[in-house]
Amino acid sequence: MRRYKLTIEYDGTQFVGWQMQENGPSVAGALVDAAERFVGERPAITGAGRTDAGVHAFGQVAHMDLAKDWDTDTVRDALNAQLRPNPVTVLSAEKVADDFDARFSAKARHYLYRIVNRRPDLTLERERTWRVGKPLDVEAMHAAAQALVGHHDFTTFRSAECQAKSPLKTLDRLDVSRAGEEIDVRASARSFLHHQVRSMVGSLALVGEGRWRADELAAALAAKDRARCGPVAPACGLYLVRVDY
Amino acid sequence: MRRYKLTIEYDGTQFVGWQMQENGPSVAGALVDAAERFVGERPAITGAGRTDAGVHAFGQVAHMDLAKDWDTDTVRDALNAQLRPNPVTVLSAEKVADDFDARFSAKARHYLYRIVNRRPDLTLERERTWRVGKPLDVEAMHAAAQALVGHHDFTTFRSAECQAKSPLKTLDRLDVSRAGEEIDVRASARSFLHHQVRSMVGSLALVGEGRWRADELAAALAAKDRARCGPVAPACGLYLVRVDY
Repeated sequence: MRRYKLTIEYDGTQFVGWQMQENGPSVAGALVDAAERFVGERPAITGAGRTDAGVHAFGQVAHMDLAKDWDTDTVRDALNAQLRPNPVTVLSAEKVADDFDARFSAKARHYLYRIVNRRPDLTLERERTWRVGKPLDVEAMHAAAQALVGHHDFTTFRSAECQAKSPLKTLDRLDVSRAGEEIDVRASARSFLHHQVRSMVGSLALVGEGRWRADELAAALAAKDRARCGPVAPACGLYLVRVDY
Repeated sequence: MRRYKLTIEYDGTQFVGWQMQENGPSVAGALVDAAERFVGERPAITGAGRTDAGVHAFGQVAHMDLAKDWDTDTVRDALNAQLRPNPVTVLSAEKVADDFDARFSAKARHYLYRIVNRRPDLTLERERTWRVGKPLDVEAMHAAAQALVGHHDFTTFRSAECQAKSPLKTLDRLDVSRAGEEIDVRASARSFLHHQVRSMVGSLALVGEGRWRADELAAALAAKDRARCGPVAPACGLYLVRVDY
């Protein structure tokens, strides 16, 4: 048996999410199906981030065990050939030790949330970004976001369905920047709660619109109350960019 | 009667092209349909660039005459409301003089061709870029491209179906640059022949792969022979970025 670390890019639009579910096609399912067509058996697969329906990845990481010791380029190319026409591709395959775990060995996860701040509808970036029509004050968003960085109880910014035992997490980075009409929110942490990035982004948009002051965002965090969260930003703007080990 | 200049963004994937045709939905047709739902009549529309099926635009320009003197924001917002769910949006509407002609008044057209230079399949950028698996030498491509800049007979880089009277054009810019795995080709001219950008890009890719030397590209131009053109690059990588007046 040989364990492989796979770095994976996907368009999450048509999937129910990373995890295999009863109700439709998943990214993990597409990979396991491709592996089965390649090696004739269905390996287990574990991903670093359980991305939701519609969430994309530039660099999801997963581990998968194969019976035979294949060359890494062969694993990558064979999986990619079998993945077509799914919008999922293996960027690289590496051999790793048997105790490498894509989920539990991860030291940092890096997410990007893309907002397009303009009045006209989206065309090329539809299902790739969140359009916000009202002008957003990016400096105010970035300044307010710094209150969320650090070790906190993130109950306010956590889905009611979140299964993590503790709402305590350490957020290492939450940067907001603008390039033309696009606003990027970059979030890094060892791990995140369910819907945490989208919940933070939705609340930051309220700050950007001037509907919340920075101290209202900090107060929402301190309240540890899900009812104090702003609207959760849509899935299509979120990307799992990189996982560090 | 009032003439409006429209700046338009679209995802060309699902269209037969800019021009109205018998064989399927066109971008111009979507705009005329939207205008009809807005004002109750079908105005004529003229675009600066007759983009082909699958070609995109960040800044196509068109002119359209409406019977009533509407506020420009109203024209933009009403057209956009009626364009949904087409992946076409009006970025801006401006009032212009009756002799403004989106096609014939244009002083420069700027195109971008996007290549992704990597082995793994495309996911998020599928139908948005052309994937080239072999490593491309961007410096060699840019250097060779300079032989095409200037006033030339572009017969070699012109579709057999091109209806322009003369193959003589002045190419003002043909720059090739790399950012990570993306290679951008930027082409500017007062006007282009049919398939000219895609023909030049396809030939430049041969230079990038090392299959053509720079002097072979120059010789292909000098031959004025369509049979000397490299493979035409696919439509999905091409974007009409801007039109100057």
